[in-house]
Amino acid sequence: MRFTYEALPSRIVFGAGRRNELSAEVQRLGGTRVFLISDGQAKAIADELASGLGALVTGRWDEVVQHVPVELADRARAAVTVAGADLVVTVGGGSSTGLAKAIALTTGLPIIAIPTTYAGSEQTTIYGLTGGRHKQTGRDLVVLPKAVIYDPELTLGLPPSVTGPSACNALAHSVEALWVKEANPVTTALSLEGVRAIAASLPRVMAAPDDLEARSQLLYGAYLSGVALATTSAGLHHKITHVLGGTFNLVHADAHSVVLPHAVAFNAPVLPAEMARLAEALGSPGADPAASLWDLATASNVPTSLATLGFERDQLAEAASRAAAEITDNPRPVDEAALLGLLERAFDGLRPSTEPGGSS
Amino acid sequence: MRFTYEALPSRIVFGAGRRNELSAEVQRLGGTRVFLISDGQAKAIADELASGLGALVTGRWDEVVQHVPVELADRARAAVTVAGADLVVTVGGGSSTGLAKAIALTTGLPIIAIPTTYAGSEQTTIYGLTGGRHKQTGRDLVVLPKAVIYDPELTLGLPPSVTGPSACNALAHSVEALWVKEANPVTTALSLEGVRAIAASLPRVMAAPDDLEARSQLLYGAYLSGVALATTSAGLHHKITHVLGGTFNLVHADAHSVVLPHAVAFNAPVLPAEMARLAEALGSPGADPAASLWDLATASNVPTSLATLGFERDQLAEAASRAAAEITDNPRPVDEAALLGLLERAFDGLRPSTEPGGSS
Repeated sequence: MRFTYEALPSRIVFGAGRRNELSAEVQRLGGTRVFLISDGQAKAIADELASGLGALVTGRWDEVVQHVPVELADRARAAVTVAGADLVVTVGGGSSTGLAKAIALTTGLPIIAIPTTYAGSEQTTIYGLTGGRHKQTGRDLVVLPKAVIYDPELTLGLPPSVTGPSACNALAHSVEALWVKEANPVTTALSLEGVRAIAASLPRVMAAPDDLEARSQLLYGAYLSGVALATTSAGLHHKITHVLGGTFNLVHADAHSVVLPHAVAFNAPVLPAEMARLAEALGSPGADPAASLWDLATASNVPTSLATLGFERDQLAEAASRAAAEITDNPRPVDEAALLGLLERAFDGLRPSTEPGGSS
Repeated sequence: MRFTYEALPSRIVFGAGRRNELSAEVQRLGGTRVFLISDGQAKAIADELASGLGALVTGRWDEVVQHVPVELADRARAAVTVAGADLVVTVGGGSSTGLAKAIALTTGLPIIAIPTTYAGSEQTTIYGLTGGRHKQTGRDLVVLPKAVIYDPELTLGLPPSVTGPSACNALAHSVEALWVKEANPVTTALSLEGVRAIAASLPRVMAAPDDLEARSQLLYGAYLSGVALATTSAGLHHKITHVLGGTFNLVHADAHSVVLPHAVAFNAPVLPAEMARLAEALGSPGADPAASLWDLATASNVPTSLATLGFERDQLAEAASRAAAEITDNPRPVDEAALLGLLERAFDGLRPSTEPGGSS
């Protein structure tokens, strides 16, 4: 047993209705002038929160764009300065959190995050801005929210079309945390807890989006998936889905449920201990976890084949080639041919069957 | 699902021989003048570490006393000032760590801890000093070590007479974390991981103290038990053992293996879900975890009855009375009569048998 592990500080306030404790959390951090960021979907809840904060709110911002364009961040930062804010509250999905992080990066202001999706970025020190002359992405403790309020009531309205991809991205982070190079016994234990929570709740949430108990489980799992990403890194699965999204204009998030079973099937032969624990966390001890993940996707009514996502079979070779260049670290050696095989299986969307020593 | 959880920052460097990375860890924290604390048992290893640090060492301290007397802390603090140290390294058991914390409390200096026992205090913000006019105990983030090096090779020489009680204290912290008021799904997952590691390794370590793989598992479990204590609190079990130690001059640490099975048997009827998971972590799914803990103690050759520890039966009533006054929070209501029953069973040291709805 040999590992190095950095656990991040975090304060989690989890539970239905706990958004009402926002003022107390602001005061706990010594905040007196709040800059409140929200995205379009979170407008109504931001109004409610602003009303609760009352005179504590010194500025609001509701222009949020994916991938945090630098010029948007600069305008938001200027507004923060004009407002004289000493704390940022962000309510919304990953892009809202991303904008708050961009502000914290240059101002050092503390963030309280209130996520309304399963993005998980509120648990990480990862920031990213796009469109400037230099790529701005990295990890910095200053962007990590000082407190996160998880209120599952805020996710009740999330449509299945957003819930599915967002939750499957979270699930994939927890699964990949089992095999990336930073994996250690602690990250593994927490990631399996995340898998357990998501697998148990996702089909229920997709069938009944207003099931508060299932929504709580799913949000809890997404939180742990954020922790997994924060303490490990992206691996095989996310490198592949990144290529699919970036190169082929595929909606990145939709590919997670398709690729994950086949990424697991590919790595399974070299990770017997991890796969046994993954199978247990998926609720089917002793079964093939790749097949269980495919079953979970089917039960959750999320995509299982690249073909249905508008991908063309003749694009697979280029995707395999690009992904091969990105994947430098994987417990099972990866080359273009292996990735092409994996992508072909993902294209066809067949239920994986792992053979001992085989690829899928 | 409703909980509030504060995770502490930590950096863990775990593995055989990794004490050799101490210089790198010192430099990572920007340390240039190290004050090195060690206890009597860790003298030889402290010499080795000092030699490795070379000119980085600006002062050493090897006077360490249990419970950190204030006058000792004051002398050590003065020595730190004279030495102009900017970082404290502590190698040894809980008392060495405690002295380093006392120094950090007034100086703000960062600590690197290298534990040689299973005390777990290197993971907590808890400090305590004794003997001054005022009781000085509390929690402060400044005393939390900035990095902890767990090198299981340093525990190979720990005699069974120290290993057993120290490990059983750690085990008790992980078990109690399942039922104290701060318990939440995350602390539960991590505590069960700690239980799993200790239960799997303790009998092996007690039978073969130089089994490095078993020592690694045990140290890993003790680390998680420290995390459990750091993020939750002491409950029924530790209140009882505290009374036994404080009032009756019983060696506090020896009582853990005796009391824990009966504390679990007492709480089991009201915690069916937790007990099922505890049973699994103890390696006997479906079995009575109280009995499994008693079996673990027996297999580990640690005490299972208060009688063998020099306790007298006519002291039980007073112990029950004192413990009842200390226990304000327990998932199952506690009164003097209930505690007397629990203590009588611990005195006799019989294997507990939980009856549904019964006490043991």
